[in-house]
Formats: sequence, structure tokens, C-alpha cells
Amino acid sequence: MEETLELARTIHADHPQLPLALRLMENTGVRKRHILRPIEETLRHPGFEERNAVYEAEAKTRVPAVIHRALEDAELRPADIDVIIYVSCTGFMMPSLTAWLINTMGFRSDTRQVPIAQLGCAAGGAAINRAHDFCSAYPDANALIVACEFCSLCYQPTDLGVGNLLSNGLFGDGIAAAVMRGKGGTGVSLERNGSYLVPETVDWIAYDVRATGFHFKLDKRVPGTMEPLAPALKELAGQHGWNASDLDFYIIHAGGPRILDDLSKFLGVPSEAFRFSRATLTEYGNIASAVVLDALRRMFDEGGTPESARGLLAGFGPGITAEMSLGRWTTSGSPRSAVSAGGAVTTTTVPSKAFIDAYTDTEEPDRAG
Amino acid sequence: MEETLELARTIHADHPQLPLALRLMENTGVRKRHILRPIEETLRHPGFEERNAVYEAEAKTRVPAVIHRALEDAELRPADIDVIIYVSCTGFMMPSLTAWLINTMGFRSDTRQVPIAQLGCAAGGAAINRAHDFCSAYPDANALIVACEFCSLCYQPTDLGVGNLLSNGLFGDGIAAAVMRGKGGTGVSLERNGSYLVPETVDWIAYDVRATGFHFKLDKRVPGTMEPLAPALKELAGQHGWNASDLDFYIIHAGGPRILDDLSKFLGVPSEAFRFSRATLTEYGNIASAVVLDALRRMFDEGGTPESARGLLAGFGPGITAEMSLGRWTTSGSPRSAVSAGGAVTTTTVPSKAFIDAYTDTEEPDRAG
Repeated sequence: MEETLELARTIHADHPQLPLALRLMENTGVRKRHILRPIEETLRHPGFEERNAVYEAEAKTRVPAVIHRALEDAELRPADIDVIIYVSCTGFMMPSLTAWLINTMGFRSDTRQVPIAQLGCAAGGAAINRAHDFCSAYPDANALIVACEFCSLCYQPTDLGVGNLLSNGLFGDGIAAAVMRGKGGTGVSLERNGSYLVPETVDWIAYDVRATGFHFKLDKRVPGTMEPLAPALKELAGQHGWNASDLDFYIIHAGGPRILDDLSKFLGVPSEAFRFSRATLTEYGNIASAVVLDALRRMFDEGGTPESARGLLAGFGPGITAEMSLGRWTTSGSPRSAVSAGGAVTTTTVPSKAFIDAYTDTEEPDRAG
Repeated sequence: MEETLELARTIHADHPQLPLALRLMENTGVRKRHILRPIEETLRHPGFEERNAVYEAEAKTRVPAVIHRALEDAELRPADIDVIIYVSCTGFMMPSLTAWLINTMGFRSDTRQVPIAQLGCAAGGAAINRAHDFCSAYPDANALIVACEFCSLCYQPTDLGVGNLLSNGLFGDGIAAAVMRGKGGTGVSLERNGSYLVPETVDWIAYDVRATGFHFKLDKRVPGTMEPLAPALKELAGQHGWNASDLDFYIIHAGGPRILDDLSKFLGVPSEAFRFSRATLTEYGNIASAVVLDALRRMFDEGGTPESARGLLAGFGPGITAEMSLGRWTTSGSPRSAVSAGGAVTTTTVPSKAFIDAYTDTEEPDRAG
């Protein structure tokens, strides 16, 4: 963070709103972030084509190791995976990386591919929920979720709004992978999922698509969106006979500090309940769709929670969209069973530890930018 | 087609492979295509940003009417829809058009959004299959599928390979929408779906992502891919206790004439079996992910098929990926029932007519480009 603030002071010395931008950055609570390339390179814009080529090369270099760790923890081989849900909004490839992964990592040729590029930070929650749907339809199936976000490749030196300066100090790079098993395993056994779109906020978080690539737009009203979203979380919990204010764990997208503070306030839960998400924000910054998987990984690292503890997972992103799910911690490995509330929805287990690779083991030095 | 050939002769008069390109175009069997904008405008490249702005404006203008027709035919209101699967590879928006559709068309705020941009022509089949999965997980659910492809907005005047010239004469613009009901209705009741990736063909159909937008690459080996894909179709049918060579109807992606000719040969089915796909190719060109929905619409227009007739749907696209499904024609509106083969897979009904809007009713003149 010190390096980021110093860079901002140097690069934007003449910016009329520099003090505000610096204050907003300091308030993020981010202490460290990891970025893909050295800072000097990140601050140059070599053109959309080269940026996207870097995205592809780095994804191919780094994603397989993260997937291997997720598979190992789930005690599954690539051939056991039935669907790959790959979410990433910071680079664009067609075919998606899923095709390359199938060719190179030993996944079966009949593995389903679900690449999603347009749900931004909400895509982590969406990936969990679509995997849950898939495992509900095919209870013997296993789903692999991959979130690959290289936010530093969307740095746009000519975007000088306060929201852009803040974003430059908030977002980080990260890759996360998780395995969801239709049956068995240890983790969060999902029981219900839902989505919610805050009406008339479609341009609050958005990309301008230009010759220079994706330009991130962040409206200053975004930090206040927990007020309309908290009722949606309560509503979903209520449909399930649960109280969103009284759950045992929370895995929440850490878009920024006010998202977490406000949600804590509107749900009436102690700040400590969001400790996993806060740790992600502090140590990695906002790593977009990978945040919820990293926060979940931190709960695994803490040893999980007591058997049958009830929890809420939620990703937030453009739309403005929330992707939410409810589940219980399980170590039983028992097969799924019908859920009393709702009838049609059946339980699916998300057992494997979610892994996050923030490049701490790579040759690239840790840099903030 | 005459206009296209004449344009090719004029624009590429000095191209050394012009005779080959003209022959390939003539062999496509395309007679007419519909494109979004007048030909003079289509042939100019105003930059990626403006192209993408045209994509967004035209999608917002044209998509709602197509969705309305699909909903009316299914006798459903927007509020009855639980998930919108929106597939489109010819423009990029974040948030996806799904957020705008929910805001403006009366869909519920808790409608799930599944936007897919990276499966190209296979995305029509993928959308059908993911809707099938969703309705299998939630049998009371209704899914809306939308395929919006403005291929003319990916015209790149500087791409002069024979594959590019052929593509310029092959692809058309189109929007299709279909409703899949978990229960009831008239249409193809899906019983099984599957995916197949042809190994080591990842760069045969691909986008180069550049400052000028998406540049389509088409390898000359693509028309020959039915040889490795036909066994995958047979395999899927075999898993279901069916014979892929002996079904009552076929809804196949009409990528080009050889795709249909070869598949007919390798499956050993008469050419007439692919008449719906051939009609789409002849009258609209290759409209990417919308082809399978348009071919399905033509089967509805023909009055459907006898009750319980068995059929195969298949989309093909980059990867090279096939997205395949098996189902029976039903007019019974009966609730889903378990399928004997496979056990875990349950039946879901795709009842509504698939609609295609090829702009025949709009102010834009029909133009080939």
C-alpha cells in the first residue's frame, strides 16, 4: 500500500482530487497485493492485443498448478471432472481456456465447458451456484470451478477519474480453483442458491470496451449497495427457514471495506463474522471473482467450523448482481439428501478446499501497483 | 449471394486466390443473408469501440421483440422465467445484456443470468444443454435461451486469407430465442446431453483479440471435423440405447455445406434428414449460435413430428467443441419422468417454439455482404 500511495503521489501529482483518491485508497484496508508483472511493465500500456496475449500466456503458465492443488485436495483426478466452470473478466479468449485445459491436463473429452466472462466480481458466486445446479441435476458429478483474474492487465493510464484511481489501488491479481462434488467430501454442503439484481444500477459497475481494451467504470454509489442487497440476502435465508443475521459463517465478496462494514451493519452481525473476507482484502486486495473462493479457503485453513454449522456465501458484481448460496459445513461425506424447505432443491456438497495462488511461490517479486 | 460474389470480385480483384475464394463461397449454398447495417457501412471499420457500441444499441433495439415472441408461444410471462442463458460471441458487454433485459422487460430481480461469450457457434447447443441441466435440477423452472449474433460486426477488411474471404461470404446476422420449460408444453423433451472436444484442434476456430476487435480465424481443416465428431454423436446415442444413424429428426449446426454432407455420410442418414439446417444455411447463412434454434423453429413450422419421435440436436464450434442432446418430440405436456438409461438423468421438456428474427420485418433492407 505504501508503494501504491507513493506511486499515486508521483504519477498524479497535479490531479485536483489526489487527496481524496489517496484517502480512499488508504481506507480500503489493503496492505499488500500481488500483480502479475513488474510494476514498470504494468504501468505501461502496450496495446490491447499484447495485454491479451500476456493474459493468455500467464493463464496457461499459472492456472494448471492451482487446479492440480484443488484436485489433489478433493482426491480426484482430472478424469473425474464432469464440468469446468471457468470465470474471468480480465482477458478474453475464444476458445476459452477450458479447451486448452482439457487438451493439456488430462480432462475427459466429454467434459462440459462453461466459460463466463461477463459477471465480473459476481462470477465467483455464480460459478459456485451453477456448479451447485449442475451437481443437483447430476448427483454423481464433480464440478471444477476456476476463477482467473489478472486485474492489473486492465490498468488504463489515461483513466483519471477518482473511481479509477481508487480501483488502481484496490484490485489485485489472483487465481482460485475449487472442486464441488455431487456426493461426499468435506466442506460447505450447499442447500439453496439465488441471484438478485439491484434494479436500475446497470451502469454502476461496467466496462467501456475500446481499442485499448476494457476500461473499468466504478460509480461512487457502488459502496452503498449493501442497503438494497441486504434484504435480498435476508429474503433468500427466509425462504430456507434461516435467519441471515444469525448464521455460523459468512463468505462474502470483499469488494471494498464499506461493502463489508455496511453488510455487517444491515445484517446485524459482528464484524468478526467477515474475517475471512477481510483477510483476503487486506492481503490480496479485491481479486474480483476469486475473492469468495479465497475467503472460503481461509475458512478451511482455520480448520472449518463445527459439523452442520450454517453459512452464507455471496458474490457481488456488475448488474449490480448478487449471487448467493446457503449451506452447512459437513465432514461426513454422506450422500446428498432432500432438503425440507423448497422440496425441489436437493443438497449438493462443495467439499474441496478452495485454493488461491497469489504468486507467492513464483519468480515474480511481490509488487503493489 | 450474387451481390456477395460481385463485391468479392471488385474488392479483391488482385487477390491471387480469388478464384478459389469465389468457388468456396458459391459452394456454401447460401442464397441470402441478412445483415444489420447497410453494406457500405458494414464494409467500413469504424473502430472496435464504435462497432461494440453498434452491437449494444442494435441488441437493445432488436432482442426484446424476439424474446416476446418466444414467451408468447410458450404462454409464459417474463416473471415466469427463472434463468436467462444469453449466448453471443460477436460483441462484448459487461454487465451482459441480461442485466438490461431484466431491468427493462419485467423479468424478476432474482432471475439467474448465464451469459456465455466464448463458445462461438457451439453456444446454441451449449445454451440448450445448460438449460436442460438447470430444468433437471429445478423441475418447476423455466429457462429462456437467447442467441444474438451480429457476425457482420466482426468483418475485418484487412484480413485477406482465403478462410476470411470465405467467412465474409458465409456468416449472417440473426437473433433467436427459445423457452425451455421444466414441465409441460410442446416441443423436444430432452433426455440426455453431452459435450465433446476434438483433441488438439484448439486453434482451428479462434479469435485473435486485437485493438480492431475480434479477428476470426478459420483453419482449412475445419470442414473435415465431422469425421472425428460423428463417433461422439454415436457414442452419446449409444449411452442412451439409441442409434444415432436411425433417429427421426436431426437439428444440426449448419457451419457450412460440408459439415452437413459429411455428417450425413458418417452417420449414414439421408441428406433430407438435415433439411431444417440446410434451409437455415441457404436462407440466412451461418448465423453462429442461432443456427440450431432457427433449425428447430423450422421443424415447429413444419408442424413438428409424430409424438415420441426421437431426435438429435448438435451445435459445433471452437474448441473444437460439440454440444449434443437427445430428446423426443412431445405434445403431451406431461410432467417429466425418469429415463431408464443412465438413471441419474431426468427428462426435461423444451416446449416452446424457437423463434428467429432475421430482420425481415425491420426498416433495414436485406443486404448481402
